[in-house]
Amino acid sequence: MRPSGRDLSEMRAVSIETGVTKHAEGSCMIRIGDTHVLCTATIEDRVPPFIKGSGLGWVTAEYGMLPRSTTSRMRREATSGKQGGRTVEIQRLIGRSLRAGVDRVALGERQITVDCDVIQADGGTRCASITGGWVALRLAVNKLLKAREITTDPLISPVAAVSCGIYAGQPVLDLDYPEDSEAGVDGNFILRGDGQVIEVQMSAEGATFSRMQMGQLMDLAEAGAAQLVAAQLAAVA
Amino acid sequence: MRPSGRDLSEMRAVSIETGVTKHAEGSCMIRIGDTHVLCTATIEDRVPPFIKGSGLGWVTAEYGMLPRSTTSRMRREATSGKQGGRTVEIQRLIGRSLRAGVDRVALGERQITVDCDVIQADGGTRCASITGGWVALRLAVNKLLKAREITTDPLISPVAAVSCGIYAGQPVLDLDYPEDSEAGVDGNFILRGDGQVIEVQMSAEGATFSRMQMGQLMDLAEAGAAQLVAAQLAAVA
Amino acid sequence: MRPSGRDLSEMRAVSIETGVTKHAEGSCMIRIGDTHVLCTATIEDRVPPFIKGSGLGWVTAEYGMLPRSTTSRMRREATSGKQGGRTVEIQRLIGRSLRAGVDRVALGERQITVDCDVIQADGGTRCASITGGWVALRLAVNKLLKAREITTDPLISPVAAVSCGIYAGQPVLDLDYPEDSEAGVDGNFILRGDGQVIEVQMSAEGATFSRMQMGQLMDLAEAGAAQLVAAQLAAVA
Amino acid sequence: MRPSGRDLSEMRAVSIETGVTKHAEGSCMIRIGDTHVLCTATIEDRVPPFIKGSGLGWVTAEYGMLPRSTTSRMRREATSGKQGGRTVEIQRLIGRSLRAGVDRVALGERQITVDCDVIQADGGTRCASITGGWVALRLAVNKLLKAREITTDPLISPVAAVSCGIYAGQPVLDLDYPEDSEAGVDGNFILRGDGQVIEVQMSAEGATFSRMQMGQLMDLAEAGAAQLVAAQLAAVA
Amino acid sequence: MRPSGRDLSEMRAVSIETGVTKHAEGSCMIRIGDTHVLCTATIEDRVPPFIKGSGLGWVTAEYGMLPRSTTSRMRREATSGKQGGRTVEIQRLIGRSLRAGVDRVALGERQITVDCDVIQADGGTRCASITGGWVALRLAVNKLLKAREITTDPLISPVAAVSCGIYAGQPVLDLDYPEDSEAGVDGNFILRGDGQVIEVQMSAEGATFSRMQMGQLMDLAEAGAAQLVAAQLAAVA
Amino acid sequence: MRPSGRDLSEMRAVSIETGVTKHAEGSCMIRIGDTHVLCTATIEDRVPPFIKGSGLGWVTAEYGMLPRSTTSRMRREATSGKQGGRTVEIQRLIGRSLRAGVDRVALGERQITVDCDVIQADGGTRCASITGGWVALRLAVNKLLKAREITTDPLISPVAAVSCGIYAGQPVLDLDYPEDSEAGVDGNFILRGDGQVIEVQMSAEGATFSRMQMGQLMDLAEAGAAQLVAAQLAAVA
Repeated sequence: MRPSGRDLSEMRAVSIETGVTKHAEGSCMIRIGDTHVLCTATIEDRVPPFIKGSGLGWVTAEYGMLPRSTTSRMRREATSGKQGGRTVEIQRLIGRSLRAGVDRVALGERQITVDCDVIQADGGTRCASITGGWVALRLAVNKLLKAREITTDPLISPVAAVSCGIYAGQPVLDLDYPEDSEAGVDGNFILRGDGQVIEVQMSAEGATFSRMQMGQLMDLAEAGAAQLVAAQLAAVA
Repeated sequence: MRPSGRDLSEMRAVSIETGVTKHAEGSCMIRIGDTHVLCTATIEDRVPPFIKGSGLGWVTAEYGMLPRSTTSRMRREATSGKQGGRTVEIQRLIGRSLRAGVDRVALGERQITVDCDVIQADGGTRCASITGGWVALRLAVNKLLKAREITTDPLISPVAAVSCGIYAGQPVLDLDYPEDSEAGVDGNFILRGDGQVIEVQMSAEGATFSRMQMGQLMDLAEAGAAQLVAAQLAAVA
Repeated sequence: MRPSGRDLSEMRAVSIETGVTKHAEGSCMIRIGDTHVLCTATIEDRVPPFIKGSGLGWVTAEYGMLPRSTTSRMRREATSGKQGGRTVEIQRLIGRSLRAGVDRVALGERQITVDCDVIQADGGTRCASITGGWVALRLAVNKLLKAREITTDPLISPVAAVSCGIYAGQPVLDLDYPEDSEAGVDGNFILRGDGQVIEVQMSAEGATFSRMQMGQLMDLAEAGAAQLVAAQLAAVA
Repeated sequence: MRPSGRDLSEMRAVSIETGVTKHAEGSCMIRIGDTHVLCTATIEDRVPPFIKGSGLGWVTAEYGMLPRSTTSRMRREATSGKQGGRTVEIQRLIGRSLRAGVDRVALGERQITVDCDVIQADGGTRCASITGGWVALRLAVNKLLKAREITTDPLISPVAAVSCGIYAGQPVLDLDYPEDSEAGVDGNFILRGDGQVIEVQMSAEGATFSRMQMGQLMDLAEAGAAQLVAAQLAAVA
Repeated sequence: MRPSGRDLSEMRAVSIETGVTKHAEGSCMIRIGDTHVLCTATIEDRVPPFIKGSGLGWVTAEYGMLPRSTTSRMRREATSGKQGGRTVEIQRLIGRSLRAGVDRVALGERQITVDCDVIQADGGTRCASITGGWVALRLAVNKLLKAREITTDPLISPVAAVSCGIYAGQPVLDLDYPEDSEAGVDGNFILRGDGQVIEVQMSAEGATFSRMQMGQLMDLAEAGAAQLVAAQLAAVA
Repeated sequence: MRPSGRDLSEMRAVSIETGVTKHAEGSCMIRIGDTHVLCTATIEDRVPPFIKGSGLGWVTAEYGMLPRSTTSRMRREATSGKQGGRTVEIQRLIGRSLRAGVDRVALGERQITVDCDVIQADGGTRCASITGGWVALRLAVNKLLKAREITTDPLISPVAAVSCGIYAGQPVLDLDYPEDSEAGVDGNFILRGDGQVIEVQMSAEGATFSRMQMGQLMDLAEAGAAQLVAAQLAAVA
């Protein structure tokens, strides 16, 4: 019943390839089916003005899509003079989610910027960005630990994200683009490896939903996140 | 234990005053405690290009804060050259939420723009905007019905929104600013008068949360939304 | 002969309600007929770079219109990416006019920003902004005096503004929107309570004018300003 | 007593050189003392959307200063991403003033754009722009008349502008930069060759002013405008 | 003597991998040593307004660098609100160069947009973009030919680009980043497979140069371009 | 055979008038036929951040065209919100070219900004800007030498620029606008008075070119530059 023939609770194939660019302190290419996102982590000594002198660190994110990552070509945001509302919303979500897995005292007064650039899109780019972004962050932090610039690991637990939704009346895990564009309800679930929830966004897109359906989507999300965390840990091992 | 002395499940005083500006097709001033938002609804015959000729209507929203609606003065977005990420995120949420209560076929090919301008802020401005925005929308649609420009009521059920969060370890309803700035978990719940859920956003702000806590916040939200719907219906009666 | 039935030299009803927002150091809602402007004054310790270290104070103003303050909805300036020429011109006028009533040495090195936001427009919004803006400024300065942060009152005399014009060939006081859009000559007069003139702007809009007509408009303006000063003093008493 | 040694009612030397660029339909370099402005008029068949199909013509203006027209270099507006408030205010004034001398029915549905670019500034650039702008407009309209594209002359009467102010307590005509930067009161007067007034702007800059002083400045302005009109007519003869 | 140990006339390893994204009509990843550029070609039926109705086609290009393609992170152009001068200059060059290899009559009234996004930078990104861009263009045009949307091949000859410069006083081929940042003279040479020259840019960067040196650089460029053309033809075979 | 009747190797008349504005430290109006560019040089004590404290000087340039310098009116870049790609490309070229004639140690830690504003355009404005810009720079540097603010002349040799191209199949010197818009190959050559080459840009515009033609254009350029250098030296004598 799903366009891809997957079971309702079946994720797409997940692959995470690390060390894909030579300049970044941490990097990976995450592939969730045909959704491919290049994630890099950059360490800088400066922090945003509002925490200068606090001793606390900061993790932030930026998100972009290459113009032809999509079925038809999108306008490049650099030429339209600003990041669109969707982009800003997504990169705020990525940064907020990753910070929820970081002990900012242990990180110390430095900033890590995670860039997530979508090379090819087939639904679920924001979730792939969070999941891949954590891997890039992990690798960058490993460098700091190895160089003894920090002594306590500031990463509390992996952070992974997965989308779930109601498609053709059924709760399904990990929507691809054909499902996403038809789903009546669309949700993004950001979880930590220790089972704690970081963020839940469920949104009616045509259909509304009930509390029971919220529970069903949450069940799917927990199962999906567990698989993603396993892939993250394997990639950084 | 709450700074305001309210019970955990106690909302602030709600008042909705309609007909507050003479030009708009629908308008109200909604006051949730010290949060005051002016909501107006404007009917236009034109629709966005992507639905031109489809026969469907559109509801959209814009959100703004007066520079001194806040404790210290904010920069006016018109002078900074663009709407900030938070503003864009909020107005997309308002529009999406209101559309989930509208039968766009019955509305016909016209657009209603709901402007939500925060006159005074004390937490929960996006929820107040949605709740008040629905009242302005209702009044504007009533004009169309009375003028027989449309014959079927396109409003399916009232749309109301309330924030809940975990403050000092406890689930609380309707966070004011002192609570909001200290809450470990912050959630916005948009519900319909018929009990259907439109959107749920729960977000870790320092603390993460569990599935049990999600349920507790949802319970509070349902109780709060019921009170708001009653106030909406009284206002437009 | 006037659309409103008023006499040639008759102002609309004036009301000034103070203390309308809890955050601002000074605030009022001024209503001149159906023109309603919310004015707030914000005190800040910083001054613009060009007077830093001079010991002098600064008063500046910003102006905005809510999108549906007008008969048909205006585009929100925050979404169009900049303030329009009319807005910039008006807020420069408001700031310049208010400064002409201030002893900047007595004010000391601090800045007061007066925000004038039009809630409902029916002609004469810039004049209402100046008149209401002075009230907000007066209330904010009173706070400084009461807190003994300054010891000499820096406000020399009230500043009030009124429009006059030539409508249907006749000089009239305080143009409302129907008159304003038809007037052949349109003028704004900013005066002080001590009778001194701060600014005069008379402009042909279709018809030109003679020196004799300039005198007639000036007579009307002096009478109108006197009424406004009385309302200002009553409001802050 | 004036820095330049001029009498109180003495203008600077005025010269208007026509035909200074080969492309424009009308052009002149106006020199008022050391203030030099290049004015060009461009005729186009299209009109702004708001008068399309009305049969009426339009005259508009743009104003700019070369970066090193001033004592110290100004930032180029093209690099700062927008025209400043002062620029917008001035070009609106130039356009409005020139239109007050035009019969828009006789002009027919076409637009004339007058560009005023300050090559060297020494006070009074907006007045020089209006005065020189009219000459460029006159020359462009002459071309239309000569080519019989229009048959009735749409220019009612020359439009000239002059600044007056109160400098060191005395009313003076045609302020240069040293006077302008010290003047307590500053005024711009736009008049027509037939004696009608188009616009009067008098503004307190430190000092306020009385009605008697308004009359004295107006006397000076009328005398100055007469000299400018004579220079305009000589230039286009 | 070169930091990489290469001979003066030795290029870096070249690899061109085609079909790297599933959505684009043509795509490749070109790798010139550590410089990696993703090139995609998009076919659209619309053309720019200035050739509408002419029957001619258009080829244009856009260029971007991922924020962490460089040694230290660059600001994302989408957040700075515009493309920088260097970006605009490069994408104009790419488009101009590719068009010099296209018969625009044979292409017919359609537009092909070539996007060149630098994934990893180590000098010579603009040359790699042109060389890889032609491959993407070739693949897209092949699709049009195969679908019989066009019948005559509009691609006249391959277009390839290579940099040469004077490094440590010696003419060298294909500068990498360490050489590029130290070179006294820097040149970009765009050539066609048929030996014709499309564009030559030689620029002093500290040192100036002589006509004899121009000839030496041109010799190197011709040799380098021949290698690149061979790689292009192998990739699209 | 040239539209102007000139010989293939004949330049247009060149005139350079110095001291044309009273405020700039150096200025000239350069006229190459009907192309007229006003060049001014401004000395400032501050330098760009990237060389602060290095003891080195900086020379930079900005370029603009008056709206009606061209046959049909161009949009003013200040109103379109940014400098176009062509403008940015040209001003980068001017600055780079002039710097190649400057000993930045001898200049000392100060910046000279050369503004080139096109008053009337008839082809070759970028070359005229470089040639005239050097004259303005020379005059400004003379002031520094005369005032003994610097003791060693930082100007190594004059910098002059000329365009050559292939028009109607023939190599021609100094293209005017009718030639430029028809030329198959277009080149800009920036040379120093001592014969060294600073920059060469040759670009196919419809036709491609051969190495032999490159040599012919270079021959023309050297002859043209020699004439321009003679005119520069005469102007500053």
